[in-house]
Amino acid sequence: MKKNDIKLSFDNSCSFNNYVDSCIGTGRMGLALFKEYQDQLKLCQKEIGFKYIRGHGLFCDDMAIYQERDMTRFGGEVTIDYNFTYLDLVFDFYLSINLKPYLELGFMPYKMASGEQTIFYWKGNTTPPKDYDAWKKLIQVTLRHLIDRYGRDEVITWPVEVWNEPNLPGFWENADMEEYFKLFEVSFNAVKEVDKDFKVGGPAVCGGSDRKWIKAFLEFCKGKNLEPDVITRHHYATELPEYTGHYGYAKLMDPMNEEDGFPGLHSTREIIDSFPEFKGKDIHITEFNTSYIPICPLHDTNQNAAYIANQLSKLGDDNKLYSYWTFGDCFEEMGVPYSLFHGGFGLVTYGNIPKPTFWTFAFFKYLKDNYKTCIQKDDTSIVVIDNENTVKGVCYNVTLERSGNDFINSYEINVKDGNYVLLTKRVDEEVCNPLKVWHDLGENRILKKEDIELIKSASYPQVSTKVISAVDGKVSFDIELKENAMVYFELRKVSVISDTGYDYNRVMQYK
Amino acid sequence: MKKNDIKLSFDNSCSFNNYVDSCIGTGRMGLALFKEYQDQLKLCQKEIGFKYIRGHGLFCDDMAIYQERDMTRFGGEVTIDYNFTYLDLVFDFYLSINLKPYLELGFMPYKMASGEQTIFYWKGNTTPPKDYDAWKKLIQVTLRHLIDRYGRDEVITWPVEVWNEPNLPGFWENADMEEYFKLFEVSFNAVKEVDKDFKVGGPAVCGGSDRKWIKAFLEFCKGKNLEPDVITRHHYATELPEYTGHYGYAKLMDPMNEEDGFPGLHSTREIIDSFPEFKGKDIHITEFNTSYIPICPLHDTNQNAAYIANQLSKLGDDNKLYSYWTFGDCFEEMGVPYSLFHGGFGLVTYGNIPKPTFWTFAFFKYLKDNYKTCIQKDDTSIVVIDNENTVKGVCYNVTLERSGNDFINSYEINVKDGNYVLLTKRVDEEVCNPLKVWHDLGENRILKKEDIELIKSASYPQVSTKVISAVDGKVSFDIELKENAMVYFELRKVSVISDTGYDYNRVMQYK
Amino acid sequence: MKKNDIKLSFDNSCSFNNYVDSCIGTGRMGLALFKEYQDQLKLCQKEIGFKYIRGHGLFCDDMAIYQERDMTRFGGEVTIDYNFTYLDLVFDFYLSINLKPYLELGFMPYKMASGEQTIFYWKGNTTPPKDYDAWKKLIQVTLRHLIDRYGRDEVITWPVEVWNEPNLPGFWENADMEEYFKLFEVSFNAVKEVDKDFKVGGPAVCGGSDRKWIKAFLEFCKGKNLEPDVITRHHYATELPEYTGHYGYAKLMDPMNEEDGFPGLHSTREIIDSFPEFKGKDIHITEFNTSYIPICPLHDTNQNAAYIANQLSKLGDDNKLYSYWTFGDCFEEMGVPYSLFHGGFGLVTYGNIPKPTFWTFAFFKYLKDNYKTCIQKDDTSIVVIDNENTVKGVCYNVTLERSGNDFINSYEINVKDGNYVLLTKRVDEEVCNPLKVWHDLGENRILKKEDIELIKSASYPQVSTKVISAVDGKVSFDIELKENAMVYFELRKVSVISDTGYDYNRVMQYK
Amino acid sequence: MKKNDIKLSFDNSCSFNNYVDSCIGTGRMGLALFKEYQDQLKLCQKEIGFKYIRGHGLFCDDMAIYQERDMTRFGGEVTIDYNFTYLDLVFDFYLSINLKPYLELGFMPYKMASGEQTIFYWKGNTTPPKDYDAWKKLIQVTLRHLIDRYGRDEVITWPVEVWNEPNLPGFWENADMEEYFKLFEVSFNAVKEVDKDFKVGGPAVCGGSDRKWIKAFLEFCKGKNLEPDVITRHHYATELPEYTGHYGYAKLMDPMNEEDGFPGLHSTREIIDSFPEFKGKDIHITEFNTSYIPICPLHDTNQNAAYIANQLSKLGDDNKLYSYWTFGDCFEEMGVPYSLFHGGFGLVTYGNIPKPTFWTFAFFKYLKDNYKTCIQKDDTSIVVIDNENTVKGVCYNVTLERSGNDFINSYEINVKDGNYVLLTKRVDEEVCNPLKVWHDLGENRILKKEDIELIKSASYPQVSTKVISAVDGKVSFDIELKENAMVYFELRKVSVISDTGYDYNRVMQYK
Repeated sequence: MKKNDIKLSFDNSCSFNNYVDSCIGTGRMGLALFKEYQDQLKLCQKEIGFKYIRGHGLFCDDMAIYQERDMTRFGGEVTIDYNFTYLDLVFDFYLSINLKPYLELGFMPYKMASGEQTIFYWKGNTTPPKDYDAWKKLIQVTLRHLIDRYGRDEVITWPVEVWNEPNLPGFWENADMEEYFKLFEVSFNAVKEVDKDFKVGGPAVCGGSDRKWIKAFLEFCKGKNLEPDVITRHHYATELPEYTGHYGYAKLMDPMNEEDGFPGLHSTREIIDSFPEFKGKDIHITEFNTSYIPICPLHDTNQNAAYIANQLSKLGDDNKLYSYWTFGDCFEEMGVPYSLFHGGFGLVTYGNIPKPTFWTFAFFKYLKDNYKTCIQKDDTSIVVIDNENTVKGVCYNVTLERSGNDFINSYEINVKDGNYVLLTKRVDEEVCNPLKVWHDLGENRILKKEDIELIKSASYPQVSTKVISAVDGKVSFDIELKENAMVYFELRKVSVISDTGYDYNRVMQYK
Repeated sequence: MKKNDIKLSFDNSCSFNNYVDSCIGTGRMGLALFKEYQDQLKLCQKEIGFKYIRGHGLFCDDMAIYQERDMTRFGGEVTIDYNFTYLDLVFDFYLSINLKPYLELGFMPYKMASGEQTIFYWKGNTTPPKDYDAWKKLIQVTLRHLIDRYGRDEVITWPVEVWNEPNLPGFWENADMEEYFKLFEVSFNAVKEVDKDFKVGGPAVCGGSDRKWIKAFLEFCKGKNLEPDVITRHHYATELPEYTGHYGYAKLMDPMNEEDGFPGLHSTREIIDSFPEFKGKDIHITEFNTSYIPICPLHDTNQNAAYIANQLSKLGDDNKLYSYWTFGDCFEEMGVPYSLFHGGFGLVTYGNIPKPTFWTFAFFKYLKDNYKTCIQKDDTSIVVIDNENTVKGVCYNVTLERSGNDFINSYEINVKDGNYVLLTKRVDEEVCNPLKVWHDLGENRILKKEDIELIKSASYPQVSTKVISAVDGKVSFDIELKENAMVYFELRKVSVISDTGYDYNRVMQYK
Repeated sequence: MKKNDIKLSFDNSCSFNNYVDSCIGTGRMGLALFKEYQDQLKLCQKEIGFKYIRGHGLFCDDMAIYQERDMTRFGGEVTIDYNFTYLDLVFDFYLSINLKPYLELGFMPYKMASGEQTIFYWKGNTTPPKDYDAWKKLIQVTLRHLIDRYGRDEVITWPVEVWNEPNLPGFWENADMEEYFKLFEVSFNAVKEVDKDFKVGGPAVCGGSDRKWIKAFLEFCKGKNLEPDVITRHHYATELPEYTGHYGYAKLMDPMNEEDGFPGLHSTREIIDSFPEFKGKDIHITEFNTSYIPICPLHDTNQNAAYIANQLSKLGDDNKLYSYWTFGDCFEEMGVPYSLFHGGFGLVTYGNIPKPTFWTFAFFKYLKDNYKTCIQKDDTSIVVIDNENTVKGVCYNVTLERSGNDFINSYEINVKDGNYVLLTKRVDEEVCNPLKVWHDLGENRILKKEDIELIKSASYPQVSTKVISAVDGKVSFDIELKENAMVYFELRKVSVISDTGYDYNRVMQYK
Repeated sequence: MKKNDIKLSFDNSCSFNNYVDSCIGTGRMGLALFKEYQDQLKLCQKEIGFKYIRGHGLFCDDMAIYQERDMTRFGGEVTIDYNFTYLDLVFDFYLSINLKPYLELGFMPYKMASGEQTIFYWKGNTTPPKDYDAWKKLIQVTLRHLIDRYGRDEVITWPVEVWNEPNLPGFWENADMEEYFKLFEVSFNAVKEVDKDFKVGGPAVCGGSDRKWIKAFLEFCKGKNLEPDVITRHHYATELPEYTGHYGYAKLMDPMNEEDGFPGLHSTREIIDSFPEFKGKDIHITEFNTSYIPICPLHDTNQNAAYIANQLSKLGDDNKLYSYWTFGDCFEEMGVPYSLFHGGFGLVTYGNIPKPTFWTFAFFKYLKDNYKTCIQKDDTSIVVIDNENTVKGVCYNVTLERSGNDFINSYEINVKDGNYVLLTKRVDEEVCNPLKVWHDLGENRILKKEDIELIKSASYPQVSTKVISAVDGKVSFDIELKENAMVYFELRKVSVISDTGYDYNRVMQYK
């Protein structure tokens, strides 16, 4: 097997901004009322622990905020009412698990909408407001309610983003740029009027026309003397999917072969910095993933996990926040999931089975604990040291298609002589591949509890330890990486002499 | 204060069929996915424990069962799919808390519907199927799925009811009786084809035209040689509401002044028994309450609790099952509730505060434990004895309007001489009136956790005990009942001499 | 009924140091391993929330810290071992519920003891160490372990007290004062050697010879140039108990008739302040209660609750910490409790029924929230205002024996005109007296779950609200206090106009 | 690697009585009050689910049942009291997790004992009663209390065993056989007097003098006309341990080389059957394990797991119940455990890490589900079929010492043609060896939560699936078994065509 020789020293240093836990994506906000959604999100918070959560649907009708109550049939009147019963349940829940909302303003309440266009199975209205004053009031009443309930000091830490992907006609009628800028201006001012310390961002565009839109957006802001606090955009990394049966199959883009730096995002930084007024403004990737459709089986694979690992090592180079789309398969954009695995975006499935990519996030979170400095970073691994001189790393064998390309990362590190324990947590197609177990068991779509438990038992990393010795100031070890494997490792100095004299070698009859 | 002298003997006996826990109503089935819904229902099961649960919406689009998946835009086909992801979550939950579904077939999936008519804020389609074969298949695929998942022996114990209130045009287009009979016949046969041991009922009518419909329904069945297993109907007990602002205020009917026996339901029994083929068929009241609108403040009051107590003492006379509409305020027919109290149907509020009527059900459930015989029943109380000769009762001061009519039930019971403890649990406007506390605190609609806890602390019965002595074979005690009060009592023989010599009177300095 | 007229103004101010939650007492530390103990303590933390917990037995054999392991029978040796398995379980638990240990050094491990004298059913050895170096090492190894496990910054916030009540021969052989001073000196130096920032206190004496001991202790410290960080003592408030059957009945001391200020404790302050070196040193009452025996039925009564309320209003005058002895009836000094109520010290019983005195602590804790200033304090009530100008108070009718002395506290407060809600939480012999319910039900000693639940339902305060109006700058209200009653009240300005137009008076038919 | 060729057919049948879950051993009953004990036992019940639990200490002083309360110092009397506070807590807990007590009568309450001899760190008194009437009364009061609390129908299903290992002088003063027979007779009669339907057994002997004692016991019973309901004995399977440092290291006996059938137990059956009166009486192995000391590191190993697997395949041949000693490391016979691994008996450690042998019990429990017949059994594996024709088995590579003897079990089964999934759960020294991880991490004795979690993550079986095809009526597969490995497998017929058309091979790019 091929060997990559990697020599490390504590004196090395390379750039690594690790915002792995900065934000996570979610399905429509109304789903947050579901017990199943809450269970899936709780697992993510327990094992990973994100800071913000962002998704669509704050103002959609299932959240029931904007209400026109018609009592005319009973001799009464039509009154406008703002109902926060559901919103409070959702945000109480988020805060109870240490998540803060990243507020996306949208979509349009049916009774406030100028048109009938909707998006998704769940029918979010994506037309401009028929009355911008009503829209402004909706924003302000909502923010003031939140401040009343959760306190101003808390609520102003919640970023505000205006709408979602207006550069796609499905998300914004005709992808009408001028209309979006109007929406942005009204919304921006509405928020700042409530409290100027809110951070407001846009234009929340997806790839394709991103450069054009971002440039135009900044021109508009400059012209209007608006200063957005953050520039937001999305990033997906596959070619167009090929649809067959219920699914779309998508080919990954090559992360090592990008014109403007992986993962094709550096141009945004450059555009912003070309405006003296906005130079250095924070960029938030408010959505990213491999494929952008929730019926792409790639999401369920070890291949996805390894590919995302590579992304996580680099996304912090230009961006201050990036939000994987999405935490769980409790999601409805293309309908309600009908089988356990179905190509959904989630890090976890229905029934709370973690997919391989779940562990990508967990492993990068481990790198943050006591983070001191990064000493190695390439397309197969990233290695850091923590405050107590423990070495930690994540390795990955990223493939674009099956090729039999297994390899070994062979590390040599300059350390003090003595004994070390090498701890590894392995996620690969053999030892942590719930998709395969589900497949082998017959791809049953009915989720019986015992099936779920069985598959879950095959969805955790394989944990191993090994004692190795450093002599002459060097310690060496190999991490084998089959295709699509991802491995976390940790090297700790350890004294293997028990203070109670447990004689392990005697017990094990190792002479 | 007025005294009602009530003399009781263990040799008395009067009719009392106590089906208090036979069934409970629920809002649309899609709500059962909500965490809040589940919490409210869990409280009911913990303190009361119902057997069945019935509500609308099994086949509505939010349950996402009937799916036409259109992949034509991706070069694929339109396929029909039956998706049980949500149904399984809901029924798994019900069964986990010892509830069985009472299956109401309805309403119409949008893509199967012949028309656009919908009912409620949540838009249930109430038109006939455009294709009765598709409807039949939907029923059968669903039942077969349930049998596959939960086992035939379990599932055939779940009653099946065809549609809801077809005698109202809102629930069934034009209240078209012939069309309903067709629906019934197709549905009945569809179910029996799956398993003839299913119990199938109809016509699920509400009051008004109930006599006409039930009679016609039985004629139809007779003509078609269909034998429904159970006749179902609804019962509400107020005049037409008067609407003001957000609410409808309704006047209770007099329970003591009914032409055909309280509570106006005996006619159904008579109609059925007039058909020799159907004589003695079980009647299920698949919905009952005082008011039939979820914005009637009466539901939140002690008056409601006392009135329902009187009903519960009598509903079993003619009916084998009766289902209070509904267990909780997590309910959406006229919109999402916007404040803690709002006249909702629920036994419990958002945030799980039990309303006074919650205790009516709890108290009648106590009467079932070890039930031996009923020894007294009138419009102010019901008294039973249990297997161990403990006397238990519920008293109620039912009022139709405020009149200052407080009274005392003064009981005398023939028992063995000795000491007895009289245990009372009191629910009245002073000691167990969460509505008043919420009102006094300012009727705040925002549900802060500490407010909820405070109001909850005023929502439990006041429990007292008193030691009384029987001499000359008689024991006497008074239960004071202010207007709208409801009191549970229990009289147990007790030896008050502790086996560890705890000298209570000395401790209390009672000489 | 007698009326106490109490006029209050926001401009008043009187001294009130509220350390109600500073510390709580516990039975032997080994009991902290019990599930039942943990449940009782969790309830206290949930409803009251203490900061520290103090009790005996850190070094007793059931905690298994000091071990001499004799392997000679197997050809091995005797080794000394310090085993922290149980200690870690206990302290992990305490910290998990936001409690910090108040470390009492004692009693003597059997194998380190110079004699055989033990105290209590659970046989704590109360003799000096046979080797003071071993004692010193035990202290130091233990503290270093704690620092290693919980961190230095945390552990140094845990006060250290040397032994318990050495002025009683049962607790310290012969009540040998010179020997105690030696123990103190060795222990003090042992602790300070580990970290000089630990706070170390003594002499932990009980009443009787307290003045003599405290004076001598301070002389000793002065002579040795030791500066104790805190002076600790205990306080109980009954005459000698009279024993009958299984119980001791004790008469309360008069709190209003003390030679040196309630509750007989001010002399300690004076003694300390008479030493220029120690003037102003903090005093900790590391134990207090009414009776000092765990078989005194007084503890279970409402009388106890009212009496302790009066104490809590005053204990902060001279003392920085006071620790009620104890949180729960899971306690073994005079044997394992054999019946639900048995005169135990606990705020809660086995099975987690709160006793009346539990609420005394809860109510005084409410006074701390947003505490701004105290505006009234006498032997019937204490009243404070909080930061938002809500008035809060606790009233109590303290009796020494049953006399029929019911009274009313009649408050008049200068406030702004408008509507107010008066919230009361009442604990008295009628509405919150679980002892009576248990008694009336037959004083059964077997704790069946349903009995426990029934009694528990009678152990919570009765909560009421009432809307009252202030006119001409004054609002008035009465709190009725039967003998031994204790009532919490809160007066809040409130707007009773609902923003959703719920017409409470119409619902209630109050015209 | 060596191959064992194993040919299987559904028509085979061999003897296999699987009582794996019949009973489990426990440390002293007083430990059952501990939270930690309860957590460990809950895990066993969740994953394995035993029926009975048996251990020592029912009547020991920490359970506080027999009380002589001396109030003479207060002018009162000495009274005898039976205190069931702790017993009720323990048995309530057992029943709450579906465990029934197996009642072992013993040891002697200190105040009822004739001597001072004690056993274990926790000092159980092992001398005869000084008054056999008092002993009889203790038994009877206790059983009557249990019947009162839990119901007669439940309690008579709890077996009663008289004392423990009276053939060892440590457990019964002088191993006095005559005195034991007296104890048995008194106890047997005491129990039968309470209810003749109790099942009473003895003599609870351990190996060594077991044949002599069992024979004499049956002679005694015969002579006295006593008919014990069950004969009880113990079984351990190591040579004498060799002690070094804190531990005893023990060599396993060879299970394949026993004079009277594995595991040396058949003689008991023969002795009993030689008495016509007792022929066929049930035998209960009320304790078994490899080593009989709780400081034998063997218990923590994979070697132990494989060895016990072999035992479990055979113990049902002669015995109706067998109880592994013990479920958890919360155990005190030789002191409180001082480090995570320490050679304790438990299936689980402190902190709830399952040891390899835990899975032996889990795997054999899987064999019971839907058990139809056993089709293979030898010293390397046992294979059964269930009601639905799924094949299930456990394989084990039992070693007595390290020898490099790895092998493969190569199965060939006659089945219908088609696709099958082979599910395996592997426990071996590489993939499920928490002892090794603890060792490699430095054998730290302090149980920090994060360490526990890390080691726990290496303590679950490795789960894999593989699809294999049967052609020509045969399916073949290999299970590789390194030394001390134990593997569960399951072969299920499965259709691998998804009904939603998930194209696994395309996703995985397997062409």
